[in-house]
Amino acid sequence: MAPLISIKSSEDKLEIVNQLLLPHTTEFIQINSVEDAHDAIKTMKIRGAPAIASLPALSVSQHLTRGLKSSPVPDYLLSRDALKTHIDGILAFLYTSRPTAVNLGAATRRLTKTLNDGISVEKEPREIVQDLIAEGRAVADEDVGRNKEMAKWAGEWLIQRVRDQGLDFSRGLNVLTVCNTGSLATSGYGTALGMITYLHETQKLAKAYYTQTAPYHQGSRLTALELQTLQIPSVMICDTMVGSLFQHHSIHAVVVGADRIAKNGDTANKIGTYNAAVLAARHKIPFIVVAPISTVDLDVADGSHIPIEQRPPIEACLVRGIRYPNSGESEQVQVMITPPGLEGIYNPSFDVTPASLITAIVTEKGVAVKAEGETSGFDLSPIV
Amino acid sequence: MAPLISIKSSEDKLEIVNQLLLPHTTEFIQINSVEDAHDAIKTMKIRGAPAIASLPALSVSQHLTRGLKSSPVPDYLLSRDALKTHIDGILAFLYTSRPTAVNLGAATRRLTKTLNDGISVEKEPREIVQDLIAEGRAVADEDVGRNKEMAKWAGEWLIQRVRDQGLDFSRGLNVLTVCNTGSLATSGYGTALGMITYLHETQKLAKAYYTQTAPYHQGSRLTALELQTLQIPSVMICDTMVGSLFQHHSIHAVVVGADRIAKNGDTANKIGTYNAAVLAARHKIPFIVVAPISTVDLDVADGSHIPIEQRPPIEACLVRGIRYPNSGESEQVQVMITPPGLEGIYNPSFDVTPASLITAIVTEKGVAVKAEGETSGFDLSPIV
Repeated sequence: MAPLISIKSSEDKLEIVNQLLLPHTTEFIQINSVEDAHDAIKTMKIRGAPAIASLPALSVSQHLTRGLKSSPVPDYLLSRDALKTHIDGILAFLYTSRPTAVNLGAATRRLTKTLNDGISVEKEPREIVQDLIAEGRAVADEDVGRNKEMAKWAGEWLIQRVRDQGLDFSRGLNVLTVCNTGSLATSGYGTALGMITYLHETQKLAKAYYTQTAPYHQGSRLTALELQTLQIPSVMICDTMVGSLFQHHSIHAVVVGADRIAKNGDTANKIGTYNAAVLAARHKIPFIVVAPISTVDLDVADGSHIPIEQRPPIEACLVRGIRYPNSGESEQVQVMITPPGLEGIYNPSFDVTPASLITAIVTEKGVAVKAEGETSGFDLSPIV
Repeated sequence: MAPLISIKSSEDKLEIVNQLLLPHTTEFIQINSVEDAHDAIKTMKIRGAPAIASLPALSVSQHLTRGLKSSPVPDYLLSRDALKTHIDGILAFLYTSRPTAVNLGAATRRLTKTLNDGISVEKEPREIVQDLIAEGRAVADEDVGRNKEMAKWAGEWLIQRVRDQGLDFSRGLNVLTVCNTGSLATSGYGTALGMITYLHETQKLAKAYYTQTAPYHQGSRLTALELQTLQIPSVMICDTMVGSLFQHHSIHAVVVGADRIAKNGDTANKIGTYNAAVLAARHKIPFIVVAPISTVDLDVADGSHIPIEQRPPIEACLVRGIRYPNSGESEQVQVMITPPGLEGIYNPSFDVTPASLITAIVTEKGVAVKAEGETSGFDLSPIV
């Protein structure tokens, strides 16, 4: 089967898969405005750090494509000043949809640069708009190619490391991942899940293990579906079972994506990543972060400065699925798993894994490892 | 409100709360035979190591009480040999309901001893049966009293430790627990949750934190309900959030129950306990096990010999709750959170936390701590 996709984009139509309804229902939602894109991100109909950069960029391209064709001509096409005010406002608005992932910020910065460059050389507003449309599409289009590059870097690094350590992997590598970092989280192929796909494609993978990833179950809903679609041998575990898995099974690596990587390598990623990193360290399992360069935020010295999004408490009390046993129809239902009126709920969407627990950070440019005995963090300059 | 109860027992009636339906529906199920008791345990309608010792013991008492009154007289009352065969068979059957918790074994051994003692002094079958009925009830009745004792030992030990370390707890202690170890898991008051209740009753508790405890959500269903009922200030976290909680909040202790404690202190408990123990060690948070003496299995040298129950894979794919938003009625629904036909699911019900990660083990007899620098384990002899 073909890999899943999160965004369908053509000249005149922009659609996303409603990821809240996966794996049971494949519903495409039309994105007709930047407001639609903002809402889809905020309500988690689309998620995954690279995907929530691609969608806003594409929605800006769509908005401007329509503007070029519309009659009467929109005010913002009448002067560079008006265009700058208009675009700056849109990008600032899109940036507020989720605070932790920095790729969205990188995407808006790219568009801002295109805008400012055009203004500085006094291009006509319509020309600048053409540049912005192309740049918005490029943000999304470049994603797949670089994902394949980073997946290969990461996969080959792991194979080499396992060889160097003289470990037996004649039966293939067992790799644990958390959350979802595949096609659905990106414009295609995936970051951490891309590495797993690469290992599978090169016949080096035994099994992919993945956590359910409460409360949104991106693992059991999305990663399960992606691995099933790609026919990659896999095993689901509950979030409670990471330590047990390490105790009873030979796991060669933990691989995760990232929402923001600080200058020293501290990494914000989906809640539960830090649990897995601490357990991996105890069991001497390499812990690998795979993410595009746009995830690295050199303006942030370390993880303590990364803003952590707190989601509404009620979301930690709700679970979505299809009725079981079902009556033939796949009716989607949301259930509350707590007593009604429960007070006191902690629901951060991300945690920060310190660089000290990370073995390697991989981007499309290569692999960074800490120097032997280094505790202060990574030198990321070679891979950004 | 009065504390919740898991078992209601009177001269002629034995009932349990169906814990699968809590917190949304309070359904009492009649236990009319030892087969009913076995089935209720196996299907997790009742769970909690002490409770699944109490129920079989009470079901034996019920069975024998009825036998004494029945006409014609049951065959097993006609001779000591027949009685022994009958009782041994029942106890062996009950013991197969769940393999990891050892309290059930301790209860069946108590009844076996009563049986054998009676036979060895050549008591009449009816006398032995009277002794067995009394012993079965004692197993359940003694539970509450000893829970209060161990809860006090554990609570006072923690208070002293925090004082000794000069930590500020003027605003009270923050304690994390996993799974459910309260009234619903025992005959009353609870073990680990008993310690939390004790700290609350003595005005030493700030907040109780608890994990949801996937896949059965004993935390978000049962512990949430118990703490709400007792009006103990509390905060629920997802299993993915243990590390994040330790990073961002001052937690004074992690306290858990146990299903089996090996001679060296290695402790089998609900899956996820080991995750929490590794994270607690990293954050230098004391990790306390609270359980009755009957949980200690001196015949098992260390944790590697404790049998770990694997539950059916499908159970890790299902979540039960009430529909949300609901239409006024509290309709219970089970939903599947994975793609249909998912293969590859790991679903162990317990994990083993090594003694090296445990700070204190508490029974109704007192507190065991490891000697300074001791790595080989606990000397449990003073507390068993």
